[in-house]
Amino acid sequence: MKPVVVTGTPRAELDTVDALAGHGVATAHEAMDRTGYLGTALRPIQPGLRIGGTAVTALCWPGDNLMIHAAVEQCRPGDILVVTTTSPCTDGLFGELLATALRVRGVRGLITETGVRDVAELRALDFPVWSAAISAQGTVKATAGAVNVPITVGGQVVRPGDAILADDDGVLCVPRAEVARVLAAARARVAKEEAARQAFLAGELGLDRYDLRSTLERLGVRYLTAEQYAKETG
Amino acid sequence: MKPVVVTGTPRAELDTVDALAGHGVATAHEAMDRTGYLGTALRPIQPGLRIGGTAVTALCWPGDNLMIHAAVEQCRPGDILVVTTTSPCTDGLFGELLATALRVRGVRGLITETGVRDVAELRALDFPVWSAAISAQGTVKATAGAVNVPITVGGQVVRPGDAILADDDGVLCVPRAEVARVLAAARARVAKEEAARQAFLAGELGLDRYDLRSTLERLGVRYLTAEQYAKETG
Amino acid sequence: MKPVVVTGTPRAELDTVDALAGHGVATAHEAMDRTGYLGTALRPIQPGLRIGGTAVTALCWPGDNLMIHAAVEQCRPGDILVVTTTSPCTDGLFGELLATALRVRGVRGLITETGVRDVAELRALDFPVWSAAISAQGTVKATAGAVNVPITVGGQVVRPGDAILADDDGVLCVPRAEVARVLAAARARVAKEEAARQAFLAGELGLDRYDLRSTLERLGVRYLTAEQYAKETG
Amino acid sequence: MKPVVVTGTPRAELDTVDALAGHGVATAHEAMDRTGYLGTALRPIQPGLRIGGTAVTALCWPGDNLMIHAAVEQCRPGDILVVTTTSPCTDGLFGELLATALRVRGVRGLITETGVRDVAELRALDFPVWSAAISAQGTVKATAGAVNVPITVGGQVVRPGDAILADDDGVLCVPRAEVARVLAAARARVAKEEAARQAFLAGELGLDRYDLRSTLERLGVRYLTAEQYAKETG
Amino acid sequence: MKPVVVTGTPRAELDTVDALAGHGVATAHEAMDRTGYLGTALRPIQPGLRIGGTAVTALCWPGDNLMIHAAVEQCRPGDILVVTTTSPCTDGLFGELLATALRVRGVRGLITETGVRDVAELRALDFPVWSAAISAQGTVKATAGAVNVPITVGGQVVRPGDAILADDDGVLCVPRAEVARVLAAARARVAKEEAARQAFLAGELGLDRYDLRSTLERLGVRYLTAEQYAKETG
Amino acid sequence: MKPVVVTGTPRAELDTVDALAGHGVATAHEAMDRTGYLGTALRPIQPGLRIGGTAVTALCWPGDNLMIHAAVEQCRPGDILVVTTTSPCTDGLFGELLATALRVRGVRGLITETGVRDVAELRALDFPVWSAAISAQGTVKATAGAVNVPITVGGQVVRPGDAILADDDGVLCVPRAEVARVLAAARARVAKEEAARQAFLAGELGLDRYDLRSTLERLGVRYLTAEQYAKETG
Repeated sequence: MKPVVVTGTPRAELDTVDALAGHGVATAHEAMDRTGYLGTALRPIQPGLRIGGTAVTALCWPGDNLMIHAAVEQCRPGDILVVTTTSPCTDGLFGELLATALRVRGVRGLITETGVRDVAELRALDFPVWSAAISAQGTVKATAGAVNVPITVGGQVVRPGDAILADDDGVLCVPRAEVARVLAAARARVAKEEAARQAFLAGELGLDRYDLRSTLERLGVRYLTAEQYAKETG
Repeated sequence: MKPVVVTGTPRAELDTVDALAGHGVATAHEAMDRTGYLGTALRPIQPGLRIGGTAVTALCWPGDNLMIHAAVEQCRPGDILVVTTTSPCTDGLFGELLATALRVRGVRGLITETGVRDVAELRALDFPVWSAAISAQGTVKATAGAVNVPITVGGQVVRPGDAILADDDGVLCVPRAEVARVLAAARARVAKEEAARQAFLAGELGLDRYDLRSTLERLGVRYLTAEQYAKETG
Repeated sequence: MKPVVVTGTPRAELDTVDALAGHGVATAHEAMDRTGYLGTALRPIQPGLRIGGTAVTALCWPGDNLMIHAAVEQCRPGDILVVTTTSPCTDGLFGELLATALRVRGVRGLITETGVRDVAELRALDFPVWSAAISAQGTVKATAGAVNVPITVGGQVVRPGDAILADDDGVLCVPRAEVARVLAAARARVAKEEAARQAFLAGELGLDRYDLRSTLERLGVRYLTAEQYAKETG
Repeated sequence: MKPVVVTGTPRAELDTVDALAGHGVATAHEAMDRTGYLGTALRPIQPGLRIGGTAVTALCWPGDNLMIHAAVEQCRPGDILVVTTTSPCTDGLFGELLATALRVRGVRGLITETGVRDVAELRALDFPVWSAAISAQGTVKATAGAVNVPITVGGQVVRPGDAILADDDGVLCVPRAEVARVLAAARARVAKEEAARQAFLAGELGLDRYDLRSTLERLGVRYLTAEQYAKETG
Repeated sequence: MKPVVVTGTPRAELDTVDALAGHGVATAHEAMDRTGYLGTALRPIQPGLRIGGTAVTALCWPGDNLMIHAAVEQCRPGDILVVTTTSPCTDGLFGELLATALRVRGVRGLITETGVRDVAELRALDFPVWSAAISAQGTVKATAGAVNVPITVGGQVVRPGDAILADDDGVLCVPRAEVARVLAAARARVAKEEAARQAFLAGELGLDRYDLRSTLERLGVRYLTAEQYAKETG
Repeated sequence: MKPVVVTGTPRAELDTVDALAGHGVATAHEAMDRTGYLGTALRPIQPGLRIGGTAVTALCWPGDNLMIHAAVEQCRPGDILVVTTTSPCTDGLFGELLATALRVRGVRGLITETGVRDVAELRALDFPVWSAAISAQGTVKATAGAVNVPITVGGQVVRPGDAILADDDGVLCVPRAEVARVLAAARARVAKEEAARQAFLAGELGLDRYDLRSTLERLGVRYLTAEQYAKETG
């Protein structure tokens, strides 16, 4: 890959990101027409975390965290560091010392397709991390990579400056140019969901609320009693 | 598959199920001659949950939760909804709104081979869920499936009306006709385990309690000192 | 394999092991020149556990825990039981009764490449366990294995009497003969890490502290503004 | 599980099974309304195999092939032996000697969720095998299981006497009572596929043949030129 | 996602693609500074295939191949169809009929992160396919996706019109604008590799040819006799 | 790890290794009391390969093949190079140029827990390779490792100079000191297997030959007719 560190990347507007993050990953994902989810492999190191911020990206060589150090310098308040490797790697590329360095710079958390370590200390620091593994395995600082270039994580492209949301459901990337539009859509969705919640609490069924009985009929789904079914299936 | 919704399925007797659930998954599994365990992939969304109930089954298309909506209508108090897909799928087919709808109907929890989302909200609601993944990935309602037909989860057949037990050890399916027999066997086992516990606390060894020294001897297991072993293995 | 139970194996000196365990798995792993980590598959059954002790090893047949019973007898205070199977197996070879038996003998915890069960009870007992799976699936006691022979776990050799450390980051094996040397190296590392921590808190960068700017330069990493990068990549 | 060997199980009619097998797994699967596929884990030990027959089932303990020996006796000409274990196991439960014993009895092949070994010899014998792994790891004969009881393989129930089809696409189970109906449906499908093949060879598109343009329109799929798309996505 | 079919996408120049494809995936990957490799999950359905062409992309819903039909119409001679799904899916979204339709349009092969079926027929047709699975599991045509939008496969972005190379080593994506540059770099590399090959055939070592002895020395690698090593490691 | 290259390691006697290799991996594994198998992940790059030789080991950093170059120099005729990494890595650490260098030195093949590339060329060269992945992903030569130290592959320890056997069933490591003993045991086993083969060809059952009827009886396995079984299971 092109071994570069890109500086001065524009970020999504942080107030809008914060407003969007308040709605959570699942809602924002729906508001993005069900795109942007970074997959099931990224798990938080403790329950109950919820953050939003702007992406600084780092692309590392497996077993090597050199570019994370280069990325720290590019971080500013409100950022979230997003890390991947050129090929799959579970090593612990990140630990408590790097979290300390990031926190000093106002960074809100870490997302990594690799492993992390010092998990007890990270929890004690309340530093939010989503990772694909937990691993004490240490790394070297010997091979070039890149900072603030587009990377892919969980099958989604993450560009520097994009909005990153993360909570117990996982991690979402919202392209920088779409944050405001997604926030509006999320707000509309929240209202719709609240109406559905009240209806469900009142006993209404999704079958009726979403007009699914006609869908079932169009698809040829038949209702049988247990006796009829037993007879049909012999 | 046959696109049907089966209604009026008979359920295991709920009081018996409740009594059995109190003994936990591992004990009931042993009482079933070590059958019925739905595998290691199903994990609870929080520690400390323990439920029992009667199965309503839903078979969905991957990426599609239409049949979960159809299944909700078939649920009644004491039920547990058990969901799988026609091929492996980690998407979030289930979230807080469906949990609300199920809770209104007295449903005790969800077991699914897919993903779930709104995990923070499900925990806040104290709605018990065991799933194979956590995923914000949303779904459509476009393709037929089936409700209350036999399905397989983790290599075990689950029939509508079977007893489902779930706790920190995972999920167990007890065939409807066997619940009373398994309860009796579980009770016997609990008594036996308590006796073993007391013996172990008093310092007895499993080697003696279960007469395993003769097994070791029959199998030709030899006792060597560390020195003898070092000499034998060069 | 040679079906033996080896008795009287020498152990690492327990006070030294305890001192080393206090520094945690990640630090001790670095002090061992980044060796000895038992891999990402072994996870604790609850957060916040941290133990150290001396290894008693058991090699079992899949689906069979006979040799764990034989191993219990070989355990003494300060030991940690380390279990693997001759081929991969997720069954619940270990549960609360065996934990009770081990605790009576002063054993500090269990490390196993298999599954464990009775997880709620193990947590209630505060018995520390790291395992590769949680499974209610029960086992038999029918096939020979070995106790206190060298085994491999997560790609690392574990010899009886070696020091075992385990915490939220996973599990480490320190060869018996190296414990004192590793303790000294860990202490040196802790001092170095504290200095780095203070420097990072004061705003110093890893780039400067570890002299990585020259590494980046040697590797040909270029710094580009976002505009320059956009122009270069078209 | 109930440790039994069931004898004299009725089989699907072999001529019908043979006629169905000629159409291949994918076609028969479609003719069963897309059910019965035993999943992607089962792979043939060499390309170009295609067999059909009637199932004799064996349920083994992990690391143990005792019940395969019991199953051999239950096999007769036209059968296919289908093997699984009570929990996942990759060991080589089957090899050339057992293949020899099966062939003498007229058995047409083996399907197993475990590993197999002697693969070079099995290929030289032209004995058809589909397995989830290849493994030299040997097994014992120490623990009970069952023969000719319903088992599940790849999430599908296989009952003794069901029809089994297997080719390069994997393995299919057709319930005994449905073989004739599925054969008729398969024949209809083959005719339909041949018509589609000729149409495609003549340049017709699936979009037109299956009337999918209206589906796309109903779903709101828009056609954009590359320029329009570039403009829309900024 | 945005449900669109993009038409008239510009393609990489086919003669240049063909010239590059002749050098194989590994060489072209090195010529791209070790980028663009679509990962180890994509495997050819038979050995010895080697193709190059221009990408038409299809993004499908899991269990649904509607957009592959839409994509066929966008294909022209020299294209390679590249398919992924919005979440992981192993179903057989592609088979012999679609291969027939593609071949009529001059398409050179298929790359898919899903499963394929009719593998025996695809081999008989000599239609080149790289897939992540083989599966007879059938699909529906019910949910929207996109054609000729950027997708990610194996952690790499594939844009419509990019060059795709595939052989026994897997699949490579070369961005459209870089094909000519990569071809030049590949040719230089081939020359260099031929010189290395001759040197190696003449007995030269990589240690000397690549000046690695100084690297080993700088890294502190020591040469010990077996006796010295045995003494050092006790 | 200790960064060393160990020279002059003693090897197993090659004639004995060759005689043992002729019996194949499965037979030698049994002759070793079912130990030494390097697991199901290592697969040959083409069917029909069978080799034996003496191990030269290389321990590499992920994404880095520096130590393979150092290992080449330590190889001599009859050796097999065995490679692993300090943490899991699928990159293509080995390709045709290194195979050329090894062949010149009389090396018989490669075993690696990583990926390999240039697979078409390796097949054309008839150079035997067993690997855990095929990957075009290239590597660097930047980080130290070790040559001719004990490593673990697939859960087995491989020491330099041990005998390595590999065929379609996978890879086996026979400790240097046990080769002669294992050869004798393998020969005895071959004779026993030939007798069993003849017996099976004559129609004898394993149930009788291995006296398994009494085992089944001791374990409480009952024989039921299909009718009896149907009645018992309701």
